[in-house]
Amino acid sequence: MTYTPPIAEQRFLIDHVVRLAEVAGPNGFADATPDLVDAILEGAGQFAAGEFAPLNRIGDELGAKWSPEGVTMPAGFREAYKAYVEGGWGTLAGPAEHGGQGLPHTLAMVVMEDLGSANMGFSLAMMLTPGAVEALKHHGSPELQKTWLPKLVTGEWTGTMNLTEPQAGSDVGALKSRAVPNGDGTYAISGTKIFITFGEHDLADNIVHLVLARTPDAPEGTRGISLFLVPKILPDGRRNDLKCVSIEHKLGIHASPTCVMSYGDEGQCTGWLIGEENGGMRAMFTMMNNARLNVGLQGVSIAERATQQAVAYARERVQSARAGHGRDPVRIVEHPDVRRMLLRMKALTQAARALTYYAAGQVDRATLGDEAAKARLDLLTPLVKAYGTDIGCEVASIGVQVHGGMGFVEETGAAQHYRDARIAPIYEGTNGIQAADLVGRKLGLAGGSTFAGLIADMRGEAGGQAALSALIDLCEAIGGELQAASPDDRLAASYPFLTMLSVAVAGWLMARQAAVADELDGDPAYLAMKKAATRFYLEQVVPEAIGLAASARAGAEMLYAMDEDMLAA
Amino acid sequence: MTYTPPIAEQRFLIDHVVRLAEVAGPNGFADATPDLVDAILEGAGQFAAGEFAPLNRIGDELGAKWSPEGVTMPAGFREAYKAYVEGGWGTLAGPAEHGGQGLPHTLAMVVMEDLGSANMGFSLAMMLTPGAVEALKHHGSPELQKTWLPKLVTGEWTGTMNLTEPQAGSDVGALKSRAVPNGDGTYAISGTKIFITFGEHDLADNIVHLVLARTPDAPEGTRGISLFLVPKILPDGRRNDLKCVSIEHKLGIHASPTCVMSYGDEGQCTGWLIGEENGGMRAMFTMMNNARLNVGLQGVSIAERATQQAVAYARERVQSARAGHGRDPVRIVEHPDVRRMLLRMKALTQAARALTYYAAGQVDRATLGDEAAKARLDLLTPLVKAYGTDIGCEVASIGVQVHGGMGFVEETGAAQHYRDARIAPIYEGTNGIQAADLVGRKLGLAGGSTFAGLIADMRGEAGGQAALSALIDLCEAIGGELQAASPDDRLAASYPFLTMLSVAVAGWLMARQAAVADELDGDPAYLAMKKAATRFYLEQVVPEAIGLAASARAGAEMLYAMDEDMLAA
Repeated sequence: MTYTPPIAEQRFLIDHVVRLAEVAGPNGFADATPDLVDAILEGAGQFAAGEFAPLNRIGDELGAKWSPEGVTMPAGFREAYKAYVEGGWGTLAGPAEHGGQGLPHTLAMVVMEDLGSANMGFSLAMMLTPGAVEALKHHGSPELQKTWLPKLVTGEWTGTMNLTEPQAGSDVGALKSRAVPNGDGTYAISGTKIFITFGEHDLADNIVHLVLARTPDAPEGTRGISLFLVPKILPDGRRNDLKCVSIEHKLGIHASPTCVMSYGDEGQCTGWLIGEENGGMRAMFTMMNNARLNVGLQGVSIAERATQQAVAYARERVQSARAGHGRDPVRIVEHPDVRRMLLRMKALTQAARALTYYAAGQVDRATLGDEAAKARLDLLTPLVKAYGTDIGCEVASIGVQVHGGMGFVEETGAAQHYRDARIAPIYEGTNGIQAADLVGRKLGLAGGSTFAGLIADMRGEAGGQAALSALIDLCEAIGGELQAASPDDRLAASYPFLTMLSVAVAGWLMARQAAVADELDGDPAYLAMKKAATRFYLEQVVPEAIGLAASARAGAEMLYAMDEDMLAA
Repeated sequence: MTYTPPIAEQRFLIDHVVRLAEVAGPNGFADATPDLVDAILEGAGQFAAGEFAPLNRIGDELGAKWSPEGVTMPAGFREAYKAYVEGGWGTLAGPAEHGGQGLPHTLAMVVMEDLGSANMGFSLAMMLTPGAVEALKHHGSPELQKTWLPKLVTGEWTGTMNLTEPQAGSDVGALKSRAVPNGDGTYAISGTKIFITFGEHDLADNIVHLVLARTPDAPEGTRGISLFLVPKILPDGRRNDLKCVSIEHKLGIHASPTCVMSYGDEGQCTGWLIGEENGGMRAMFTMMNNARLNVGLQGVSIAERATQQAVAYARERVQSARAGHGRDPVRIVEHPDVRRMLLRMKALTQAARALTYYAAGQVDRATLGDEAAKARLDLLTPLVKAYGTDIGCEVASIGVQVHGGMGFVEETGAAQHYRDARIAPIYEGTNGIQAADLVGRKLGLAGGSTFAGLIADMRGEAGGQAALSALIDLCEAIGGELQAASPDDRLAASYPFLTMLSVAVAGWLMARQAAVADELDGDPAYLAMKKAATRFYLEQVVPEAIGLAASARAGAEMLYAMDEDMLAA
């Protein structure tokens, strides 16, 4: 099964959802000309389809392999990674002063989307490095930047995030890894980290670990956490005292080694402080917010791939006559319920993509100093992460269903998408954590005015859409209620509310696109599809989200009405 | 991870949803005394937990193995199957005149539920044989019955269903396998069948294949299909000319070999006609309806297992403080959103179980000659199959989520449930086929009066429940609209309508149970849980189903507004 990059869709979103033209030009991203954008979309799509997609199945079947000497990737992965570095794909949004091209984040995101659709597991090797670049750029000393940024920007070296420990998952503040000053400005790092994506591999010459640890006498909890740069290979060429002691046997993304990392077994692991001592959480959030957008994007990527595969299968597979349309068997794409499934896949994928691209547009505005865009981005980040990954799973599951019995057979490939997609609602903060972030921190940003501004913008464009307008009204009302609610009631409502607000924002952006498509000259097939997907989303998906209002208002009392022992009854 | 049979729940449902007492006693199932029912629930639960559950993981990891000599099961499976046969578990509902105990189907279903929770893949070996027994009992000649039924009833031999061929999946009428009279009353069978569950294995001494094929000069389509009994070992002890040529590499249920079967490669495959020539579809539906209920039940089984595992994990795993309740980290069961997930798992599982048990009660009434129960069973069968399997997937997915990162690691076991559950919406007629059956055949049964009777019964007990009453009203209205609609519009609406009606029926049965729980003396923890699950279902899940009304009324026009080429745009 090949991957066809959705270039028309990407271009349309860049023009009408990101509105890149507003931030390109002399006062913004000067190099982001329409021609360059076209060249990047074409080139990235070709590269992903040509180099990464063919490795997707072998990555799943063979996967990354661990030995005491390290982790090796299946045949072909080193070459493909090298081509990625040499093509300069990692440098697009990197800082110009350290070898990057200084282009909009939006364009780097399109590259990640293509890579994720082509080969989700492998794409993680490329996904975390930009986060490390961001953390170093914003918090690292000039010396650290000079030593480490150039090769991270190109991807010659890769970066990792080391947060999780066995007792410290969602609760980052519970981590115990230690960092003791060596007296020469460096620190001796020790501890065990788990779930470290691409913590070890043979794709690059060095791996730059960004590790959260506690200095002696640091306060408890998140206030006592510092961030360290801990390279696999030290600047003098020696191996640092760290190793990957095992990798996980996982449901999916087999091409991505998920490592248990051990630091300082010999007491000789050297690290460098990034930013302030005890300021690690702030630096980590710089990486994490970037990663959360990228994980939401992974949901879009896998949904796109699953949809392409299901559409192709449905257009080939002949089975049964269509009731009321003669007695000859037809290709299943002609059956109403199959068509409903396919249109749902298209609509959910396009809607989540619109939400994700819109957020990327806010990243670029924020980079140029737009504080309102930064606030809106903060509000939308949990939506992008959770909604994108939820629809990734749903669309991949529908993709299996469209294939019937063949969907359950691994050779077909539909099942791999279903397995791969399932990690995304979990990592980089479970979707439950995203929902808690939305209702606990984001709704109340700037005294609630960030949320109110979003509602006002949505309402301004939702005019003729009855269901969408009703959903926006509900979101406004419930959002207000939740800001005044107790923590328990707020959290009990958080997930259904997050879904409602995500659908409202995505519905708003779909409605905007359909309105543009009505006016625009362009590929008639693409524009008709955009209008059909929008109509499906507004008339079928939006009403479902309205059906969540009762849950978003139910409060916590119901959840604690029975004792926890009774859950086991 | 162990399995704890939900005996209190099973007993409660037998009393208040099945209302077994109405069909036990001298004019019905005379032996089904309360004491015997208790003994069966206890014994089946113990057997499943003790013999089957310990093999679940090895069944997944090693799976069934194919070689040219046949299919072998992992170590321990033969012994467990032998214990099943020797325990007489297969005979419960079997016909008394052929060695069965003639007990209610409901009790056999409870056994299957336990086996499915303990080891879903393995339980398929036990699930299809009763369908073969039913087909032979209703359609086989006395001679065939005498030869084949006794050992099928005990499970010493197993049965299979052979419908599917590469070009004939949902469209059974497209099958090409042939059956040519040998002149001695037997037929020479030839053809290839795919997706044959337990088509070959080493658990039993013989395998009795029920094979759909065409006789020479048979009419085209489903009207020209006949059913044949084709044993692996012939009555004279010779091997029949049939073999398993390969097994599928599947997403889940690895303990269940899914076989490609080849019949008559040497022209020496002998079969016996069951029922009338060209009457195969009728006989096959006897098996298939039985199997559809059992597959719906599999959804309940896997949901139960996933829920037990998630509850146990959530009660152990300590992570983060609960907002507003002090600063100490708590077990995650105390966090509102985790509790919401767990309560949703419980509520969906109980609701689908109620629907399934209720249908089993109709089987038993139909067996005793109750025509209204038979009609209601026909109406409910697609709901049981589709809704049970849909919630099986949803609950298994929430189970993964509750485990966080550990849910994605295969060793934990949550991911196996997620993989295993995914087959159930596909086999025995995809859920789309179930939805088509509901709107195409079942709504209009007896001129619509079967559906109207169900609505009236639900309304009679839904009194105080506002959301449930609203959903019932919507189902009645949309059900009426669909009976008058064009085939395209009917099919476009079929799946959302099936979900709405399933939730209405399950909600009605949950409301009934909660009302009983209010009045009853019993285990307070169990009764409180029943009320909490019912409340969650009625206040949160029922409103979601109301949100599907727009989809169930949208019609087909939207689906065909764009050309199919545009789906690829």
